[in-house]
Amino acid sequence: MEPVRPNPLITLTTDFGLEDHYAGTMKGVILARCPHATVVDISHNVPSFSVWSGAYTIDQAAPYFPSGTIHIVVIDPGVGTDRKPILVQAIQQYFIAPDNGVLSLVLRRETGHAIVREIANRELFLPRSSSTFHGRDVFAPVAAALAAGIVQTESVGPLLSDMEVLDSITTSSSGPQQWTGAVLSVDHFGNVITNFKASEFPSLSSGSFELQTSKQVVSTLRATFGGAPAGSCFAFLGSSGYIELGINQGNAAQSLQLSPGDSLLLRLR
Amino acid sequence: MEPVRPNPLITLTTDFGLEDHYAGTMKGVILARCPHATVVDISHNVPSFSVWSGAYTIDQAAPYFPSGTIHIVVIDPGVGTDRKPILVQAIQQYFIAPDNGVLSLVLRRETGHAIVREIANRELFLPRSSSTFHGRDVFAPVAAALAAGIVQTESVGPLLSDMEVLDSITTSSSGPQQWTGAVLSVDHFGNVITNFKASEFPSLSSGSFELQTSKQVVSTLRATFGGAPAGSCFAFLGSSGYIELGINQGNAAQSLQLSPGDSLLLRLR
Amino acid sequence: MEPVRPNPLITLTTDFGLEDHYAGTMKGVILARCPHATVVDISHNVPSFSVWSGAYTIDQAAPYFPSGTIHIVVIDPGVGTDRKPILVQAIQQYFIAPDNGVLSLVLRRETGHAIVREIANRELFLPRSSSTFHGRDVFAPVAAALAAGIVQTESVGPLLSDMEVLDSITTSSSGPQQWTGAVLSVDHFGNVITNFKASEFPSLSSGSFELQTSKQVVSTLRATFGGAPAGSCFAFLGSSGYIELGINQGNAAQSLQLSPGDSLLLRLR
Repeated sequence: MEPVRPNPLITLTTDFGLEDHYAGTMKGVILARCPHATVVDISHNVPSFSVWSGAYTIDQAAPYFPSGTIHIVVIDPGVGTDRKPILVQAIQQYFIAPDNGVLSLVLRRETGHAIVREIANRELFLPRSSSTFHGRDVFAPVAAALAAGIVQTESVGPLLSDMEVLDSITTSSSGPQQWTGAVLSVDHFGNVITNFKASEFPSLSSGSFELQTSKQVVSTLRATFGGAPAGSCFAFLGSSGYIELGINQGNAAQSLQLSPGDSLLLRLR
Repeated sequence: MEPVRPNPLITLTTDFGLEDHYAGTMKGVILARCPHATVVDISHNVPSFSVWSGAYTIDQAAPYFPSGTIHIVVIDPGVGTDRKPILVQAIQQYFIAPDNGVLSLVLRRETGHAIVREIANRELFLPRSSSTFHGRDVFAPVAAALAAGIVQTESVGPLLSDMEVLDSITTSSSGPQQWTGAVLSVDHFGNVITNFKASEFPSLSSGSFELQTSKQVVSTLRATFGGAPAGSCFAFLGSSGYIELGINQGNAAQSLQLSPGDSLLLRLR
Repeated sequence: MEPVRPNPLITLTTDFGLEDHYAGTMKGVILARCPHATVVDISHNVPSFSVWSGAYTIDQAAPYFPSGTIHIVVIDPGVGTDRKPILVQAIQQYFIAPDNGVLSLVLRRETGHAIVREIANRELFLPRSSSTFHGRDVFAPVAAALAAGIVQTESVGPLLSDMEVLDSITTSSSGPQQWTGAVLSVDHFGNVITNFKASEFPSLSSGSFELQTSKQVVSTLRATFGGAPAGSCFAFLGSSGYIELGINQGNAAQSLQLSPGDSLLLRLR
């Protein structure tokens, strides 16, 4: 794979929340080292320690960013242990994250081979790095050094032969015309995003399928929310590229009592 | 009206919340098409589907932005139905929004004629647009194309003769020296913003008026919070340009049990 | 002290929350006066009116920003009273805030003398300034004028001989090998940040100390969260530079029922 020229555009995806100084401090580190960088927040409200939700969040946003964008993803329950920080080149962009599976979904989008490096060059870190805030002390300064063009990717650290991937995050066939899947995410409106890819089920229509949750079987497919009767749950081909469950002006996740990681069963008739 | 030169300064006002990737993804779309754009968040926490609150939010912020700023406003309960996306030129700035009344208050600030266009040129949209995330697929790429100067406003779509306006958002005379109004918004501190414009009631002073809510009559006017007795409610000429109700270091909306849309009655003595 | 050249990099730390237009409106004021400014949010979710929490937030972020950065800090329970707005030059950066102690911790970092000015030049304010939203009407336009280089710091207002400092925010000796301190902050993860500086207690190790809260005595020191048993509370030398209390994948502040300002006692053995 050709190396991609880093772009001074850096995004942040974390579970730091917005009450504290954490995200702002990372921006200080970046702008002190690369004053012309543009820093964009994807979200700082990924559920605490949820590697799965972080994987979904960066997977949804990254494809819309330009070539060379540098994404920092810090959902890191193992900070301070020996999990490695990594730099990954995939889909013509860069990803800086702990090696804990948070890049699983991005990796599936890469049709060639991702290039994975351990972030090992301590000269790029802040002096006196803490063991608890690698976002500030490790990830931000490395991203800034790449964005500023003052270091080549090879100097960040050695190549790794593979990276951590979350197995359960993909669907699997569990019988004739039947697949086991899971809830990937619940959005702000209460829509439930499943991990069934819309493109893999092109012939879906109302009555042609059953999507079974622990509470209810959904078998209606709608094109839009507008016009849907209030209160009844339906499937739709959401903006995520996955099959989603929603209720017009209602909260599907609350109604169906679904959370990220919950199992689903899809049957075609 | 003279056409205004678009400024590569784009603002976002939505009800998407900050838990998800939505706002970040819109910024990716913008920066991929207009790398030198500056993107500013007004708020992503407008109450879900509240066109009224969105109208208030953009009305408060827009006047402080420079000429040519492009404001994207996505509070869009009708996404996927036949409500039109529109591009409006008013107060020397641009507004991109669904045609559902969310620009009602901005329109009232324009002393000449606003120019309203339907956003109809599908070549400007993202390929394979979803029916549920127009912020990403329609509004963001159109704003970016204008900001980058790669399209003229005329190419966005045909002129419309008018746009949706929320009637009830304005006050009305309901007797001699008496006006019916409503709560426009409740802010983070619990202050209640009414829709009575301070400039229309210049002679207001303590004892010269009664502002009647369902719970209580307020007849005290104060210049500042400092020095106000704790716990008692007063009116003040707030930073919004509207008459507001507050309690020093307390929460007026909770005390008076008021929400956006609730009716108010103002009587002068 | 040499005057530092202002950098067109402006940060915002407020208790305005993110539901309203307030932070966005301040950015409009800044970008209208200094179009090339970069504006960075530190946090807008400082607890309402908590000068103490604001002091901690800006103290943590500022040292990571480049020379000349202009920090606006608006936690301002006295807005509209006669508390002065001030411009402070310290640690090679600028701070614009109400004179209410919110810069106490930053001031302690300055080893020389901070330069303090009253912000008094009304020509720099927005015309028709409100008495309730100085962030928009006073602080933002003054910061933008400095960032744009259209005004010298001397023109902002007269020198002041001192500024408000929060006394109780520092620790004090209360016996042989014993110090009284307090909780500075509770972060998003429930970690408790004390005001005991790690650098002042270099010999701390498990069993060599007792940190007494109202609920429990903590005497374990750990280097990282990883590997700590779930549920038991320990001290660690956090990324803040202060001694912190945490529970691996748990919420220490809830467990110990601690909030900012609560008293602590540290004894060395």
